[in-house]
Amino acid sequence: MLLSRFFIPILKENPKEAQIASHVLMLRAGLCQQSASGIYSWLPLGKIILDKITDICKNEMLLAGANEILMPTLQPAEIWKESGRYEDYGKEMLRIKDRNDRDLLYGPTNEELVTDIFRTHVKSYKELPLNLFHIQWKFRDELRPRFGVMRGREFLMKDAYSFDIDYESSIISYNKMFIAYMNLFKKMGLKAIPMKADTGPIGGDLSHEFIIIAETGESEVYLEKELLSFEGILDKVDYDSNLQDIVNKYTSFYAATDEKHDPKAYKKDLNNLIKSRGIEVGHIFHFGQKYSKPMQANINTNIGSNIPAYMGSYGVGLSRLVGAVIEANHDEKGIIWPKELTPWYYNLINLKNGDDDCDNICYDLYNKIKSMSKTVLYDDTMDRAGSKLAKADLIGIPFQIIIGPRGINDKIFDLKDRKNGEIQKLSYDELINFISTN
Amino acid sequence: MLLSRFFIPILKENPKEAQIASHVLMLRAGLCQQSASGIYSWLPLGKIILDKITDICKNEMLLAGANEILMPTLQPAEIWKESGRYEDYGKEMLRIKDRNDRDLLYGPTNEELVTDIFRTHVKSYKELPLNLFHIQWKFRDELRPRFGVMRGREFLMKDAYSFDIDYESSIISYNKMFIAYMNLFKKMGLKAIPMKADTGPIGGDLSHEFIIIAETGESEVYLEKELLSFEGILDKVDYDSNLQDIVNKYTSFYAATDEKHDPKAYKKDLNNLIKSRGIEVGHIFHFGQKYSKPMQANINTNIGSNIPAYMGSYGVGLSRLVGAVIEANHDEKGIIWPKELTPWYYNLINLKNGDDDCDNICYDLYNKIKSMSKTVLYDDTMDRAGSKLAKADLIGIPFQIIIGPRGINDKIFDLKDRKNGEIQKLSYDELINFISTN
Repeated sequence: MLLSRFFIPILKENPKEAQIASHVLMLRAGLCQQSASGIYSWLPLGKIILDKITDICKNEMLLAGANEILMPTLQPAEIWKESGRYEDYGKEMLRIKDRNDRDLLYGPTNEELVTDIFRTHVKSYKELPLNLFHIQWKFRDELRPRFGVMRGREFLMKDAYSFDIDYESSIISYNKMFIAYMNLFKKMGLKAIPMKADTGPIGGDLSHEFIIIAETGESEVYLEKELLSFEGILDKVDYDSNLQDIVNKYTSFYAATDEKHDPKAYKKDLNNLIKSRGIEVGHIFHFGQKYSKPMQANINTNIGSNIPAYMGSYGVGLSRLVGAVIEANHDEKGIIWPKELTPWYYNLINLKNGDDDCDNICYDLYNKIKSMSKTVLYDDTMDRAGSKLAKADLIGIPFQIIIGPRGINDKIFDLKDRKNGEIQKLSYDELINFISTN
Repeated sequence: MLLSRFFIPILKENPKEAQIASHVLMLRAGLCQQSASGIYSWLPLGKIILDKITDICKNEMLLAGANEILMPTLQPAEIWKESGRYEDYGKEMLRIKDRNDRDLLYGPTNEELVTDIFRTHVKSYKELPLNLFHIQWKFRDELRPRFGVMRGREFLMKDAYSFDIDYESSIISYNKMFIAYMNLFKKMGLKAIPMKADTGPIGGDLSHEFIIIAETGESEVYLEKELLSFEGILDKVDYDSNLQDIVNKYTSFYAATDEKHDPKAYKKDLNNLIKSRGIEVGHIFHFGQKYSKPMQANINTNIGSNIPAYMGSYGVGLSRLVGAVIEANHDEKGIIWPKELTPWYYNLINLKNGDDDCDNICYDLYNKIKSMSKTVLYDDTMDRAGSKLAKADLIGIPFQIIIGPRGINDKIFDLKDRKNGEIQKLSYDELINFISTN
């Protein structure tokens, strides 16, 4: 991608409205802008990251055997009255009247609507287990939207819903999602910590939150040190295998947010208990027949008929994750994208655009990198050298290849690792060799 | 994909609420279901098709040099008051009050919001031309939603917005989108006809609609025969080249919907004028400074300052296209997907699931086809043979490979072309050879 053709409006000053690092950096690096209180427009760089996060999440859901559907943003009020939840969300639910005075609402979650789809089509135990997921914008009319996309009102969520014939099967479905969550966060280059959680307005008897560790995270967390290094799963999970043991292993570790932390509940060596900070990015719920019973989502079984399905729901905050990733990966100069999510792998910087030698070597390198099937953003703009270098640090692509007249004379190319700031001085062949192997 | 793991709820009867072929077939083949009047949930098969259409459209926009952003579904009322359009949409605009009594609306289109983004960041002619597009759900509160996703209330649209420094440059941007539209519909396997159009509430001095030819289309169209076979563009367009001549060639043909058809306006040989039916799937507008002027989206130029930008907007109805594709590609038995959009290329049908010979040969073929990097849906369900064959015709995958005990005995495999219904009887080697070359 040529930077001159990529719309990335950089802010030079720290915006006043932003209080946390990710919000500051998302505004400064041109990832998003506010269009109304708690409602954001995603600019090209932000959209690419949001798409990468979404794709990783979607692919893991498909690997875990879930079917992708897409429910609308607006829902009829009737089904929420059926489930008995129409009043539960209070003022957080955005209620709407259409031109015919019918009650609609902007979905804050989709248990009711997916149960309505399920009961329309599925009647027999032979069609179970079933897991339906979708990726759609939700709305929660927060009293005080803040922290940018971390606590916006209109936000993107992946929500999955499992349907099973009995309690035991529904725990198997719950475990699949538990492991899928551990895996999808890992594939984003993030360290996720599962924690037993309250169920809130979703309801149910079993629930886990997934917390991303980030120094600047919103809440304090206490956890066993070993949990940070524990690698319970492989990249390629067999979702048809028995996952109970590995779920048990994860949940055997102590982990709690400060609200719930109870030092007395931790019986092991206190030296192993560490304090960190984190951000909630996922939440899974097992709630059995809470919605299927009042909404009569019944199935015929081989031992009887009209058994309300056993259900669970599983959410990942996709737009929130963009903020969370930045909280976990930045320094005072800007963002540092994990390799798993970076929009490009190399940032080629021409320090003297318009200089024939610099232009030629840069275009040659740009085409060479692309021909090696590597991704590259080429800063071919007329900006000053200092401004280009600051921008590269701000937008946080893992490797910068810096080309200027002096380096060309000496036949030396600067390769900068954004994460640690180290610069290697390489010959052309060494540079090409680096690119081909990284 | 194993059909036993794919959620595709088939309806045996024609649903009463559906009046047109695409609506009937989308409900029967399990592509979607209504969740409220004019508001649909997309089921897995429908979601796949919607994604394929969306991807083709998105890729062509990127090829044409547009930048992808994502604006929210809800917009603040203020910007619509600035442009003077807040009342123009009347009851079709869904107006919403949030918990703080602020006026929001569900965007029916995005001229105002994108102009607001533009004026926040772009001040200089050096940053132009700029084209920003997004793919987002819109809402128009139609008085009588009907025809399924063809005239729903919540619908998915790709809308692009061009910004230029003067009239001449903005016509170049308009032409790029004109050609991109011809190309993206072609890449979907559709024949699109450009027609001069009214501008309606969007406004402006120049506008074209893009009509897909379909026998069961919503409106009559009159056009010169040659336009149907005219191939003015290549798959790979150089969007930086001068496109005026090719746009002129397209617009030199006579084409009009019945509302606008004037036989006297057509001066050439009447034998070349044919009548057909079509469906509007795209609409592009050039409206100059209509929004930039009242909203003060001004740019500094090299000859002066504070010139309101010249703009155009460009819409493709993505969810509507799913219906339009089916109107253009179906018969009495079901859908016939164009090869460009089909979710899978082969439908492998095991007529006797549970029979060891049939199961073995089917699994072998299933894995073989996948190893050849071809896409395949394998009907491994316990349904009756007749029901499987009817379902295959209904869901419309281009080629059916039909495996039953008789064929296995004779070592003959049936390959059915869904489009013309012809069955070829092939040996195993002939079948594999067909698959490898198709």
